[in-house]
Amino acid sequence: MKKFVNDPNNVVKEELEGFTKAYSHITALTDDYLVVRKQPKEEGKVGIVIGHGVGHEPSICGWVGKGFFDVDAAGEIFACAPADKILSGIRAADRGAGVLQIIANHAGDVLNGNLAYEMAIAEGIKVEKVLLYDDIVTAPKGQEENRRGVAGMFFAMKIAGAAAERGWSLEECARVTRKANANTRTLGVALSPPTHPVTGKVMFDLPDDEMEIGMGVHGEAGTYKGEMLSADETMELMAKQVIEDKPFTPGEEVLVLLNGSGATTLMELHILYRKLDQILAETGIKVYDVLLGEFITTQEMKGFSLSLCSVDDEIKSLWDDPCETAYFTKA
Amino acid sequence: MKKFVNDPNNVVKEELEGFTKAYSHITALTDDYLVVRKQPKEEGKVGIVIGHGVGHEPSICGWVGKGFFDVDAAGEIFACAPADKILSGIRAADRGAGVLQIIANHAGDVLNGNLAYEMAIAEGIKVEKVLLYDDIVTAPKGQEENRRGVAGMFFAMKIAGAAAERGWSLEECARVTRKANANTRTLGVALSPPTHPVTGKVMFDLPDDEMEIGMGVHGEAGTYKGEMLSADETMELMAKQVIEDKPFTPGEEVLVLLNGSGATTLMELHILYRKLDQILAETGIKVYDVLLGEFITTQEMKGFSLSLCSVDDEIKSLWDDPCETAYFTKA
Repeated sequence: MKKFVNDPNNVVKEELEGFTKAYSHITALTDDYLVVRKQPKEEGKVGIVIGHGVGHEPSICGWVGKGFFDVDAAGEIFACAPADKILSGIRAADRGAGVLQIIANHAGDVLNGNLAYEMAIAEGIKVEKVLLYDDIVTAPKGQEENRRGVAGMFFAMKIAGAAAERGWSLEECARVTRKANANTRTLGVALSPPTHPVTGKVMFDLPDDEMEIGMGVHGEAGTYKGEMLSADETMELMAKQVIEDKPFTPGEEVLVLLNGSGATTLMELHILYRKLDQILAETGIKVYDVLLGEFITTQEMKGFSLSLCSVDDEIKSLWDDPCETAYFTKA
Repeated sequence: MKKFVNDPNNVVKEELEGFTKAYSHITALTDDYLVVRKQPKEEGKVGIVIGHGVGHEPSICGWVGKGFFDVDAAGEIFACAPADKILSGIRAADRGAGVLQIIANHAGDVLNGNLAYEMAIAEGIKVEKVLLYDDIVTAPKGQEENRRGVAGMFFAMKIAGAAAERGWSLEECARVTRKANANTRTLGVALSPPTHPVTGKVMFDLPDDEMEIGMGVHGEAGTYKGEMLSADETMELMAKQVIEDKPFTPGEEVLVLLNGSGATTLMELHILYRKLDQILAETGIKVYDVLLGEFITTQEMKGFSLSLCSVDDEIKSLWDDPCETAYFTKA
C-alpha cells in the first residue's frame, strides 16, 4: 500500500495524536480520544457533537473550534464511533444548555447515534439530534430523509456551530440546522477509486475510460456509469439534476460547494466552477458564497461533488459568523 | 486521461477564469490573464509579483490578496510565463514604491524572470528580484543558490507580502525575504506519479513497492529510491537530513510545513507530523507554527515535503500579520 502509515491498526489513533499536536492552540485530545476544543465553550451555551467514521477529510476533527464543533467522537476508518464513545462525547459537549447531536445519515452513524442519544437522555442530559442528508441519488424526491449524508452536510454543520456560539437555545439551534439541511442538495461523481488505509485494498473498480455519477462516499453504486465526459459536460449534467431536485429557482441565493474527493486538483475544480458560474447566471440563481477544495474526501478518490444550499437572511447571517478551526476559518 | 478538463490547450485559461469568478471578492483577471487583487494595494507601498508555471496548487493565484501577492503572472502547465507577461505583471504591481519580483529557482523561471527584470529596469521601474531556493538535495551545502525552489518558498513569500503590506521600503522587503529564504530547508518524497493535464501522460515511473526521496516537483531524480518505509521511518530519515543541512539547532524556533503533493491524505500528514513533533521535541527545536496541507502540489502526485524555517522576532512578527487570499488567510 502506497501510504505513509505505520501499523495500519493504529491509523486513527496516530492521526488524532498528530492532528491535536499540530493544532494544539485550537484542539485537545482526551484520554478516550475525543477531539475537543482547547478552550471549552462558555457555560450556558449549546454544545455541538458528532459521532462518525474516519477517512473523509478534513471532517470532523478539522472543524472543531470556536463557532463550530465542540466535540468530535471519531470511530475507525469508514466505521462510526461506538455508542459509548458518542455518549462520552455528548457528556463532554454539555455546557449546561443541552447538546445538539448531529448524525450523518449512514446506517452505522444512525444506529450508534440513536443508541448514544437514548443513553444520554436516560442520564438526564438534554439532547436534540438532527439527521443530515443531502445526496439526491440515494432516494427519490419525497423520501429525502432516506438520502445519505455527504459533503453538503458542511453547510448545516457550520450553521449549527454559529447558532450555538451565539447562545441560541437548543430548540432554535436544532430548528435552523434542520432548515439548512432541508435547503441542501448534493450530487457526486467518481473517476477513480480510493485505497482503504487499513486493508490496503482498492475500494471499487472503474474502467480507465469511464466515470460514475452518484456514487456514494464509500463507493456505493451510482446512477450513471459511462464514458468520460468533459468538465463542462459533466457540470451541465450534474448541475441540472441538483437544481431540478429541490428545485432551486431564479432569483434565490445559494451557497456553493465543489468538494474534491481527494486526488482531484484545484485546477479541475476551478475549471468546473467556471461552467457552474455560467449555468447559475443563466438560470438566474445568485451565488452568495463559494467553497472550493477538500471538505469531505474519500481518501485519494478522484472525483468531486456539487452541493447547493438555499440561503435566507437568517442563514446568511449565521454563515458569515466567524469561526476558527484547523481547516476552516472565517474572520 | 481521468481529469475534469475541456480542451487540454485551454486548461490554464479556463482555470484562471473559474478561479477569479469563484474568488471575485478577492481577485480579478486582467485582459492579459494576470491575476491581480480586487482592491489594489495603496499607492506608495511595494508591490509583490511572480512569474511561474501552473500546476502546483494552490500557488500562486491562491495567494493573491491583501498581505500577500499583488500580481500572479501564470504561464502554462509546468512552464514559466514568458518575459513579456512577467513584465506586464511588474507594471501592474507597481504602486510607486517599487516592485519586489520573486523568482523560484527553476531554469525557465530564472531565464524569463531575468529578462523581464531587465526590461522593467530599462523602462525606469524600480525592481528588486529575490531568488528563492530550498530543496536540499539539488545542490550541496555551500552552493545553496543552485538549489531548486520548492514548497518551503511559501515562508519567504508570506514574509515578503507582510513586509510590503506594512509599507516597508523595497530594500527592506528584499532583505527580510532573503533572510526567510536563507533560513529555509526542504526535502520531498514521492510515492506515485502525477498525470500531466495537457498531454495526459504519467510523468515518471516508480514501482509499486518503492518510494523516492528528494525527487523534484516535476519528477526530477532524487537521492534515495528504495522500498516503501513506514511513516515514522520516512520522517526520521527526512527530518534528520533537513535538520543537519542548515543545521537547525537546539533552542531555536521554526515554522513547519508538511506539504501534500496532491493525492496524499491529511490522515497521512497528521501521522507524519506526530513523529516530527517527537523528533523536534527530542532535538530541542521549538515549533512556532505548523502548516499541514496542500501548498505547492504536483497535480495528483502522492508524496509530501518537509520544510523548516528558522524564525527570529522579526520573522515571527511578519508571519503573524494578517493576510486574506483565496487559500491562505490569517486573521
